Amino acid sequence: MSDTSQLLLPRGFRYSAVKAGLKKSGRTDFALIVADTPASAAASFTSNKVIAAPLIIDKLHLAATGGRVRLAAINAGNANCAAGQPGLAAAIATCAAAAETFNCKPEEVFPSSTGIIGVPLPAEKLIAALPEAAAALGSGIEHFLEVAKAILTTDTIEKTAFTRFEVSGPNGSHEVRIAALGKGSGMIHPQLVPHATMLIYVLTDAAIEPALLQQYLSKSVEVSFNRISVDGDTSTNDTVLLLASGAYEAVIGLNNAAFATALTQVCTSLAHQVVADGEGLTHVVELHIHGAANDADALKIAKSIAHSPLVKTAWAGNDPNWGRLVAAIGYSGAQIDPNRIDIRFGELPICLNGGRAPQFDEASAHEYIQKPEFTITIELHQGSASCVFWTTDLTHAYIHINADYSS
Amino acid sequence: MSDTSQLLLPRGFRYSAVKAGLKKSGRTDFALIVADTPASAAASFTSNKVIAAPLIIDKLHLAATGGRVRLAAINAGNANCAAGQPGLAAAIATCAAAAETFNCKPEEVFPSSTGIIGVPLPAEKLIAALPEAAAALGSGIEHFLEVAKAILTTDTIEKTAFTRFEVSGPNGSHEVRIAALGKGSGMIHPQLVPHATMLIYVLTDAAIEPALLQQYLSKSVEVSFNRISVDGDTSTNDTVLLLASGAYEAVIGLNNAAFATALTQVCTSLAHQVVADGEGLTHVVELHIHGAANDADALKIAKSIAHSPLVKTAWAGNDPNWGRLVAAIGYSGAQIDPNRIDIRFGELPICLNGGRAPQFDEASAHEYIQKPEFTITIELHQGSASCVFWTTDLTHAYIHINADYSS
Repeated sequence: MSDTSQLLLPRGFRYSAVKAGLKKSGRTDFALIVADTPASAAASFTSNKVIAAPLIIDKLHLAATGGRVRLAAINAGNANCAAGQPGLAAAIATCAAAAETFNCKPEEVFPSSTGIIGVPLPAEKLIAALPEAAAALGSGIEHFLEVAKAILTTDTIEKTAFTRFEVSGPNGSHEVRIAALGKGSGMIHPQLVPHATMLIYVLTDAAIEPALLQQYLSKSVEVSFNRISVDGDTSTNDTVLLLASGAYEAVIGLNNAAFATALTQVCTSLAHQVVADGEGLTHVVELHIHGAANDADALKIAKSIAHSPLVKTAWAGNDPNWGRLVAAIGYSGAQIDPNRIDIRFGELPICLNGGRAPQFDEASAHEYIQKPEFTITIELHQGSASCVFWTTDLTHAYIHINADYSS
Repeated sequence: MSDTSQLLLPRGFRYSAVKAGLKKSGRTDFALIVADTPASAAASFTSNKVIAAPLIIDKLHLAATGGRVRLAAINAGNANCAAGQPGLAAAIATCAAAAETFNCKPEEVFPSSTGIIGVPLPAEKLIAALPEAAAALGSGIEHFLEVAKAILTTDTIEKTAFTRFEVSGPNGSHEVRIAALGKGSGMIHPQLVPHATMLIYVLTDAAIEPALLQQYLSKSVEVSFNRISVDGDTSTNDTVLLLASGAYEAVIGLNNAAFATALTQVCTSLAHQVVADGEGLTHVVELHIHGAANDADALKIAKSIAHSPLVKTAWAGNDPNWGRLVAAIGYSGAQIDPNRIDIRFGELPICLNGGRAPQFDEASAHEYIQKPEFTITIELHQGSASCVFWTTDLTHAYIHINADYSS
């Protein structure tokens, strides 16, 4: 690790990760993100009506504290979902033990879990690992990366993003830092509420009140995590937590464009990283929907395409079968005119006015979609609404990951 | 063919199938079902907003004739969809040629197509094959089965169903026959309107007026073809055509329970056959949703489960991972209480009150879902609405069929 890498991390946080014995692989599976003093907090959670025990506790805790978090305690290997009263008890016991360790209120602890659903969480393993986790805390980039590694499940790589910008204040210019880490590979179609098995932690050293922090977060989430899908399965555990330590002098008020832009940039980067590590993928596909009647219709069409097994398998086969795209557009429920649909692969004209484009060249189209990342643009000619959406193909490897061993 | 098999076919129809050269395999791909005199007709078509040229023509023809069809002309190997004006012209030219061959009005011809989308249909091949098809017509069961074979695409077996019942009339008791044939394997999630790449032809020798015939058909379709899904992709070409020749003396009026039951039985049988031949499947799963707040919610939950890649891959792996079921129930959009969800695999208790059932036994659950056909029952405790839905798992073979060669 170079010294300059330390300059990326927001001031006011420490990190650690240890082995609590939840992952069958024996890897690190329990991580802490600890703020030096209670941080201003905003969060987005899954819209799934079945939500994991830690999310139930998180909502109660944020309400009780008015949006203050001293530490996030994150385990991988067990989702603590559909585990009934024992699941809630396990989350509560973990928070109580962490509060004792860090001399804070239990309500200031933010628990998260990811892994298999329906198996009671062995809280005793987490509680037993707390002293070691507390002793291992550090503020270095190496500690931050240990957390990013420990929370992974079927992910193949760590997911982090960093940005810095200057804010002018009464005492001159101040540098604000934002750092984020997250995990997610399968069961990825986050639909977060006020927009959330994706776990994302975004940290900043700016000073922002919780209510305002939530506004910034909700806007950023809408155009980042809510615009991706691997398999269309909206998880029971998705969480995005944004903590502002206020450790630095930069105070962020309403309509701070620099903060909003930096936050969206970090969220979009992590959203891309989650899609790019989607289970078994061979292609990342960026969908541009243009000319929709309204924003909801643009999203309906993007999701209809992103969730079509026939479209996704055609991509896996490098097959420029645009007929499957047209079918998915047709059943999306959005307002369309079948005779006004235009489709381009990158810059290549594929479909014009609902039929094969005169310039369609199968060989070029086939070559283009062999690229690991490609863009498909749909023009509907119904209005001026548009959206960008990121998704993946559906491959043998996805089946292998999710069918070929009992989870 | 035994002589008794002839007793299964409704009187008043003839059948043939020939090779028009549309299938790369060189198999028969053009079939005719010809009524001796114009038959009373009812039809249901896909709700996809992109609809194939033959369906556009079919709707116009049925409106023009008030529901009279002399012949159905069906090709496989090309869907004649998203083919613009040339596609419409191809369907119209085929009808005109068939009308000339059979000395009827073009509006009395009902064209259907199934196969690849976006490639113009070579109508000249169908027209050239018409004389041979007309010469080959016959009323035997062997002719009927030739049609069932010619219309297949990725299907692995022919799909037919037969039933007979007695109707009392002024001149005594009369036997009514219903026979049906169809195809469908992928792009299967028919959402038919008034309730379609599934093609289904149901024939009867009863006498029924078109408007009444449509009422009977719509009711039967709702609980059969609209209750199945292989991959969630609603096709551009799905069609169910019901023809009543009136060749026999049995006149069917309003609320004829025997006819309604017989029709639903034939439709349900073919719907099952389509699911059971779903692309690449290793399991057929019958979902029973009970205790939903209303009918729409029951269907929402069934479809959410039937379209979840994670649920379907778990089935493919004989994995009793019921957590994925709970997640799919949670994001279905239906009214639920996560703490009141009960799940059974067959008679085995799996999930009780939203958590693992005390009697849950992984080995038994694993053994049960190794069966090629199994039942999953979901009890929601929200109301008294229920539904039954049939779907499949998602396997390596599905990926192979749809990704591993360019279509």
